[in-house]
Amino acid sequence: MDLADRILQKDKRALARLITLIERGNTEAREALKKLYKYTGNSYVIGITGPPGAGKSSLVNELAKKIRAKGKKVGIIAVDPTSPFTGGALLGDRIRMQDLTLDDGIFIRSMGSRGSLGGIAKAAYDAVKVLDAFGMDYVIIETVGVGQTEIDIVKLADTVVLVLVPGLGDDVQAIKAGIMEIADIFAVNKSDREGADRLVTEIEMMLELSQKDFDFRPPIVKTVAVTGKGIDVLECRISEHLDYIKKNGILELKRKTKVKEEFMELLKDHISRLILQKNASIIDNLLQDISNKTVDPYTALDILTREIF
Amino acid sequence: MDLADRILQKDKRALARLITLIERGNTEAREALKKLYKYTGNSYVIGITGPPGAGKSSLVNELAKKIRAKGKKVGIIAVDPTSPFTGGALLGDRIRMQDLTLDDGIFIRSMGSRGSLGGIAKAAYDAVKVLDAFGMDYVIIETVGVGQTEIDIVKLADTVVLVLVPGLGDDVQAIKAGIMEIADIFAVNKSDREGADRLVTEIEMMLELSQKDFDFRPPIVKTVAVTGKGIDVLECRISEHLDYIKKNGILELKRKTKVKEEFMELLKDHISRLILQKNASIIDNLLQDISNKTVDPYTALDILTREIF
Repeated sequence: MDLADRILQKDKRALARLITLIERGNTEAREALKKLYKYTGNSYVIGITGPPGAGKSSLVNELAKKIRAKGKKVGIIAVDPTSPFTGGALLGDRIRMQDLTLDDGIFIRSMGSRGSLGGIAKAAYDAVKVLDAFGMDYVIIETVGVGQTEIDIVKLADTVVLVLVPGLGDDVQAIKAGIMEIADIFAVNKSDREGADRLVTEIEMMLELSQKDFDFRPPIVKTVAVTGKGIDVLECRISEHLDYIKKNGILELKRKTKVKEEFMELLKDHISRLILQKNASIIDNLLQDISNKTVDPYTALDILTREIF
Repeated sequence: MDLADRILQKDKRALARLITLIERGNTEAREALKKLYKYTGNSYVIGITGPPGAGKSSLVNELAKKIRAKGKKVGIIAVDPTSPFTGGALLGDRIRMQDLTLDDGIFIRSMGSRGSLGGIAKAAYDAVKVLDAFGMDYVIIETVGVGQTEIDIVKLADTVVLVLVPGLGDDVQAIKAGIMEIADIFAVNKSDREGADRLVTEIEMMLELSQKDFDFRPPIVKTVAVTGKGIDVLECRISEHLDYIKKNGILELKRKTKVKEEFMELLKDHISRLILQKNASIIDNLLQDISNKTVDPYTALDILTREIF
């Protein structure tokens, strides 16, 4: 029985093994993914992001428990930042999450955002597919929203929860438009701290100012993840968002966009590798010319394109 | 006279204009870059990265003044993080740097890391090329080292300075290997704070443990950017590193690698766009099949590849 078969038979070890192979870019992983693909598309993917120290992992932990309590199975992919000047905290978070792992309906995996640009996004989404095929009802993907790559990963989820905290020294104005726009739901965590209400008001104002016609206006939920406060409301809002996007064909559209983006990335990588192989000597010559400044990169590109097609 | 000509004639407005066009992905920018390319390769590129709050901008500010005092011209590209939960601080930093801009031998530009994956890396390096062609002796590229994209940008510099500070709550162990490895020089900034010596010792131990045979062992410089303390030593170490990489052919090698990486990115983007245009209908059909789960993405890739070549 191969890895894919074992995963379809709910073997957690095989699950862990395949994700490791995916991280390593192993060809065996590709074969398994091919086989598993037709069993995917049933998991509902929740993306959770926010600044370091917002308490995302605790929140994910509590949210997973709530979902689990409803009898649903949950997979968690936590993408660590590449360069954890915040590394210590992350390790602590992961340890705290271990109390979930004794449960058979839960699987937690931490993935490092190392390797090539965009590589982690592919690995993370392949891991989501594996958890999907394994039969998880929900897959939570957690990233620290500090870099472009991390934002791009969470953007592909069905529902995106942006976790903010009061008292980070900056107000909402300081958060660039791009990140606010990806949020379907705001969680104001550590809401027992001073400034929580002000933060809620600021988010509300920002939503007003955005001039968007919201069919689903992003709700703002106050939570205290370490005590579990507000997590039931958060879970409820997430369900409501899911219902909404299902009924309006948005879920289907989101999934189609995801399929397209993933496929185009795959295509780009594959084609460029093929071209590199088939045209190695002309590319080497062009690179030499570019280095010598006898040709500029754009003109070199035109020359190569004419050669290929 | 077009933009490129004006830049070659040291017109700072044209410089600012072209960088704006680059950020917007304008086709006019491409034409100017083509024309300017043969005038590039003379600037020495210094990459400066580190965690938020390390005082990078003040350090860049002081370093630029030191370089300028030697009669050399300096361009600065500051790449803001995509999602500045740290946004306020950045703005403050930029304002502090304004005292440099009255000087004609200095040009400062802040670029946002928005847009498509890898897009900012391309824009930042195109901006470096423009400053290079403009005649800057040094170009400093500053990023907050928190995401993969930001690390990838700074990695392409000739000399990389990693700025750390004591008392961030984590020790050096918490900083993943990847980021330590890109450093040619360590700056321990805010070194008047408690814990500076301990941080220096930790970096030294880490260098010992790395088991690398250093020809150029990364020096560690203690600085206090706000008072200018240690900046002269830092400037000196940077010069030494430049001398070293020049003499050993490392600079040439680094530049060749950069040319190759940049060209391959350009190629990937261009080719995938061409393929998308020429094969729009077959790709649409394949995407439909992938969405319907009648084919998996990898098999679809094989089908498309056979079609193209």
